[in-house]
Amino acid sequence: MPGTTRCRIKAARFAQDAGRLAAALPVALALLLGAAGAQETGPLTIERFGSFHVGGRNVEISGQPIREYMPTTGGALNRIDPNGAYIVGAMYAQYMIPAAQRGTAPLMLWHGAYLTGATWETTPDGREGWDHFFLRRGWATYVTDAVERGRSGWAMVPEIFREPVFLPLQNPWERFRIGDGPGSFARNTTAPGTQFPTDRASYMNFMRQVVPRFLSTDEDVTAGYIALLERVGPSVVVAHSQGAAFAWQVAQRRPELFRALVLVEPAGTGDMAQAARLKDIPQVFVYGDNMDSRWTAIRENARGFAAAIRTAGGQVDEIDLPARGIRGNSHMVMMDRNGDQVAQLLQDWLAAHGFWR
Amino acid sequence: MPGTTRCRIKAARFAQDAGRLAAALPVALALLLGAAGAQETGPLTIERFGSFHVGGRNVEISGQPIREYMPTTGGALNRIDPNGAYIVGAMYAQYMIPAAQRGTAPLMLWHGAYLTGATWETTPDGREGWDHFFLRRGWATYVTDAVERGRSGWAMVPEIFREPVFLPLQNPWERFRIGDGPGSFARNTTAPGTQFPTDRASYMNFMRQVVPRFLSTDEDVTAGYIALLERVGPSVVVAHSQGAAFAWQVAQRRPELFRALVLVEPAGTGDMAQAARLKDIPQVFVYGDNMDSRWTAIRENARGFAAAIRTAGGQVDEIDLPARGIRGNSHMVMMDRNGDQVAQLLQDWLAAHGFWR
Repeated sequence: MPGTTRCRIKAARFAQDAGRLAAALPVALALLLGAAGAQETGPLTIERFGSFHVGGRNVEISGQPIREYMPTTGGALNRIDPNGAYIVGAMYAQYMIPAAQRGTAPLMLWHGAYLTGATWETTPDGREGWDHFFLRRGWATYVTDAVERGRSGWAMVPEIFREPVFLPLQNPWERFRIGDGPGSFARNTTAPGTQFPTDRASYMNFMRQVVPRFLSTDEDVTAGYIALLERVGPSVVVAHSQGAAFAWQVAQRRPELFRALVLVEPAGTGDMAQAARLKDIPQVFVYGDNMDSRWTAIRENARGFAAAIRTAGGQVDEIDLPARGIRGNSHMVMMDRNGDQVAQLLQDWLAAHGFWR
Repeated sequence: MPGTTRCRIKAARFAQDAGRLAAALPVALALLLGAAGAQETGPLTIERFGSFHVGGRNVEISGQPIREYMPTTGGALNRIDPNGAYIVGAMYAQYMIPAAQRGTAPLMLWHGAYLTGATWETTPDGREGWDHFFLRRGWATYVTDAVERGRSGWAMVPEIFREPVFLPLQNPWERFRIGDGPGSFARNTTAPGTQFPTDRASYMNFMRQVVPRFLSTDEDVTAGYIALLERVGPSVVVAHSQGAAFAWQVAQRRPELFRALVLVEPAGTGDMAQAARLKDIPQVFVYGDNMDSRWTAIRENARGFAAAIRTAGGQVDEIDLPARGIRGNSHMVMMDRNGDQVAQLLQDWLAAHGFWR
């Protein structure tokens, strides 16, 4: 029976194809789920990743002594003439583009003072950070090191950059609402119900990533962010602390380079007199728990700035975590044990505002 | 005919499954090829990625003035007491673990002086770097920033770290065999047949990633690498320039932490008197083209050191690029236009020595 034979051939082919399918299925399924935006756990498929530096300005140095030194065992004498031209104030960015994109714009992650892009990577206690969180949800992420820090490098002191500031161990513990105020590092006491991983090993991992900042570089930092946005194009900017203040200030200069502003515990604001320049950028800001008088004042400044933007016709939402029953968040929200819960609120806000499909 | 009906049902199911297969096939094929180690182009599937800091030592600072400053518009006054304990000399590493691993050990990428882990990432003219190259071939890669640089941060000067050195624009052009010696940056002339991307835009991108180094930190750097290897475990270490000198020196202290040493233009050596400590680590080193007298001397030191290791019973191979007809390589081999050709020689060496399956 030819029909039966054909059927057998088809069945045999089907069996062969089914075998191939079975072999391909687990990975294919993982990827198909990825295409639907669900790479929330497990392997991640990256279309491409890489890094670059942007911006900077030229500086001429003269009158410095020539330096000779033996750089290493078995090397040869180095003779460095430090006089001449430098490029300073460039900025580093690292990007990861997921195979299945769902964000409608690049998503940038700008860190705060004394920190680098490591802020957004693995947490001090070894969990995935917000870079992972947003990448897994289909955002093309750009993690930056602000000018003067991390892989952006720094410039001659005091000829070009001035006034580096270093943080001793107790400072972030007592100032970032991890501990319960002055003296709490020595006492080893924590803010009530803190979500920060306060075991000493995790806190020391956090302190290992703290770097110096300078007090003279705001213009260079601002120019670096503008150069970055000009290269990448209009973006959703998720910015923390000092980075959030920079985000507001940069957006006042170049509002067309921002699709949305997501401000995590902003440590400052933009220029109140120019609040109207932000009226066309959807914005949300979030603060955590255990506010002392200094943080309360900072938050009041942010609320006043947001009110001025609203008065000018803009839209600024606030997510007040304790008011939503989410307690114990420190200044380092993205490292807190419930960090992903807060990231999800921001992700929901972005989706609700049409930035995620 | 019940047989025909069954056959039709099977055929219909096959059509349905074939449709699913067709939808899944491109990604599945990409991944199956990946499982066979061929993710050489296109999307990459990453099992996990992340970063961490390791190591460091405690330092007490006293007698420093308290500092008050207004950190940003709309912020609140900061009062920084710099006195107290610090952790300094920690080191940053970023890892990417491919879904389909073929390396038999982690592969670390250690950069040279004045540089950071950016050395191994996207090249100054925008091509994929050696981090991509090895990751795409199934190696778990660890890209580090040496102590004192990049995201590893730095410490108070001169109380803790001393003697930062900065490189003006002309220095690497003239010293890394990109240009043809002294005065070549001003003349805008290049080494004969150079493989470095010498258009001014690419070179300036390279200079944007150059950072200061210190002359007082060798012990901290060495301790950082040891802490890293203790955490990750015995590794294949691909190291460049100053990083290669550190690799030899660290391996003399802790040979059991190294599976293989791949040394790219080492700028120095280990301790000649202790060459025997390296006899059980398979090693290869490579130098490029256009050697001036300074680089010739450095290479002769390396060759002498390698000979001492061989005399002690060790195995050290040399890849002399010009002798193989590969011309024009600068000191920054991994950024040269033929960088992947050199990486492939190193990859072949690793495979031939059983480190890749």
